[in-house]
Amino acid sequence: MYKVVLDVMGGDFAPSQILRGADLALQEIPELELILVGREEVLKTYVGKPRVSVVFAEEVVEMDESPGDALRKKREASIFKGIELLKSKEAGAFVSAGNSGAVAAGSIFILGRIEGVRRPAIATLLPTVKEPFVLIDVGANVDSKPIDLFQFGIMGKVFLEKVWDRPNPKIALLSIGEESGKGNLLVKKAHQLFKNSNLNYVGNIESRDIYRGEVDVVVCDGFIGNICLKLSEGLAEVILEMLKNEVKKSVVSFLGLFMAKKAIDGFKKKADWREYGGAPLLGVKGNVIIAHGRSDALAIKNAIRVAVNTIKINLVEKLESAIKDNLIEEEKECA
Amino acid sequence: MYKVVLDVMGGDFAPSQILRGADLALQEIPELELILVGREEVLKTYVGKPRVSVVFAEEVVEMDESPGDALRKKREASIFKGIELLKSKEAGAFVSAGNSGAVAAGSIFILGRIEGVRRPAIATLLPTVKEPFVLIDVGANVDSKPIDLFQFGIMGKVFLEKVWDRPNPKIALLSIGEESGKGNLLVKKAHQLFKNSNLNYVGNIESRDIYRGEVDVVVCDGFIGNICLKLSEGLAEVILEMLKNEVKKSVVSFLGLFMAKKAIDGFKKKADWREYGGAPLLGVKGNVIIAHGRSDALAIKNAIRVAVNTIKINLVEKLESAIKDNLIEEEKECA
Repeated sequence: MYKVVLDVMGGDFAPSQILRGADLALQEIPELELILVGREEVLKTYVGKPRVSVVFAEEVVEMDESPGDALRKKREASIFKGIELLKSKEAGAFVSAGNSGAVAAGSIFILGRIEGVRRPAIATLLPTVKEPFVLIDVGANVDSKPIDLFQFGIMGKVFLEKVWDRPNPKIALLSIGEESGKGNLLVKKAHQLFKNSNLNYVGNIESRDIYRGEVDVVVCDGFIGNICLKLSEGLAEVILEMLKNEVKKSVVSFLGLFMAKKAIDGFKKKADWREYGGAPLLGVKGNVIIAHGRSDALAIKNAIRVAVNTIKINLVEKLESAIKDNLIEEEKECA
Repeated sequence: MYKVVLDVMGGDFAPSQILRGADLALQEIPELELILVGREEVLKTYVGKPRVSVVFAEEVVEMDESPGDALRKKREASIFKGIELLKSKEAGAFVSAGNSGAVAAGSIFILGRIEGVRRPAIATLLPTVKEPFVLIDVGANVDSKPIDLFQFGIMGKVFLEKVWDRPNPKIALLSIGEESGKGNLLVKKAHQLFKNSNLNYVGNIESRDIYRGEVDVVVCDGFIGNICLKLSEGLAEVILEMLKNEVKKSVVSFLGLFMAKKAIDGFKKKADWREYGGAPLLGVKGNVIIAHGRSDALAIKNAIRVAVNTIKINLVEKLESAIKDNLIEEEKECA
């Protein structure tokens, strides 16, 4: 059995969608056991349910609360209680759609970092016209150093190889020109580290090309990755909105509208982040999956599936050895 | 008459589309005079044409050439000859779809910066569900300082007010959270400068929201702005591609396909960067319009129209006085 802790209180649609996602996951994954963490009033009907245990946490970290404040003042909140259960080996992975800053800060503080990792990072899968790619970091860090970007590349590679079974992924640095001389100081320095490594590094990639599916891992600072992630979501929504308006304007026949709507919905499914489940926080000593704040039951179910996979393949151990293999020399160079 | 210098050799579809754009502009704008700069073989048929003069430049800066190298080795290239004509007051504005780095470097070197401006920046208009907004900087600078971002805000405001007649535009800083505490060091420091100014500053904006049309000027470092710009273009293309495939898959009737195609084309027109013409390089002593590298005749015509507007309203003078009004105190604080 694989044991996953689920924060029932986190996310824009908590707790109802989170609980529905838990039910779906229990149905679909026979080898799953869940520990649900949340308010007693929310969880009392789950007491005694097969393959479920319940831990009460009355406090909740709000979505816009400062992670530092939350960590100081709300240590009994569902996020931190959940991470504590991971720390004490009650479970093999932790999933939350709550305040992602608090999940990251709590994980780093409670679980600690994998030896050699300077900055844990959030990796997310995004769709392309071919296979999905990993974007790392999408918001755990701002103002990263070149060595951080290099470590993000290693961790993104291991995640894609081990959890998603994509051997020897191509790694690229997000920059504003494909030529190695182009970019800001951070990218130029990180480029040197990648170039001198044994990784399958293919150089810079421009943002215009990341959805083309030619590259498997795209590395950037978390400020930029977060901007890319949210820009993509926002733009996709706006385009679909504009498109629907155009359809309404021009379609005189019901048939045309119906067909176009079918096309839009078909596309939306393909570009749907919920399909990929959550984004792991890589580099901490435990399998932590950050689900999207707007997660519905489907997204939560898929995040739990990713969590189970991280336990199955023992992701933390894999990351530990990859960092050890790749990093000793690089760290000396950059110290 | 308004005199505009046009670099005929710059852009992916030069010279044919550039010349076609010139012809369109001459037809549409009666008070326009053009100085065309380019190879003799390309321009010889234009000699003696009404409202057109011709300056030969046999050298061409390639699209991927290093701006510094070009400036040292190819001073007779069309880009630099064109900027020299602006410098010597032969014309009131310069338009090029060529190597944008070379246009920026050449403009700064040949024309010089407006007094008080530390770093000139490229401003571009982007569509939203409502009115278009200005994104500044989209690539003239990487590794900007807080004072640079503050100046970008002032220049973006003046451009929108004077060239596009949008009074008192709302200015926001691009960041990874709406709260003022969120962002990287650069954004946090720039926030203080904006907050203490008289500008219509509305705080941070997340990338997810920039296409919603709630804010008029979005300020960021050029590395990030360039990534946003190209990501938007790339994603819009990929979405439309995916959508067309979906339409093909699901539409059984010719009518449905026809309707959806009409909708997609209608949308594409609205989201078409070519409609907005070029992006001005703000902060140099001259009206310099950088057109998109992929400009066709329509885009060039619109860039020339923007160029004419910058002459009409004397944009450089307006920028000079805005910088003078806003900056003295701020610069002292940051020095």
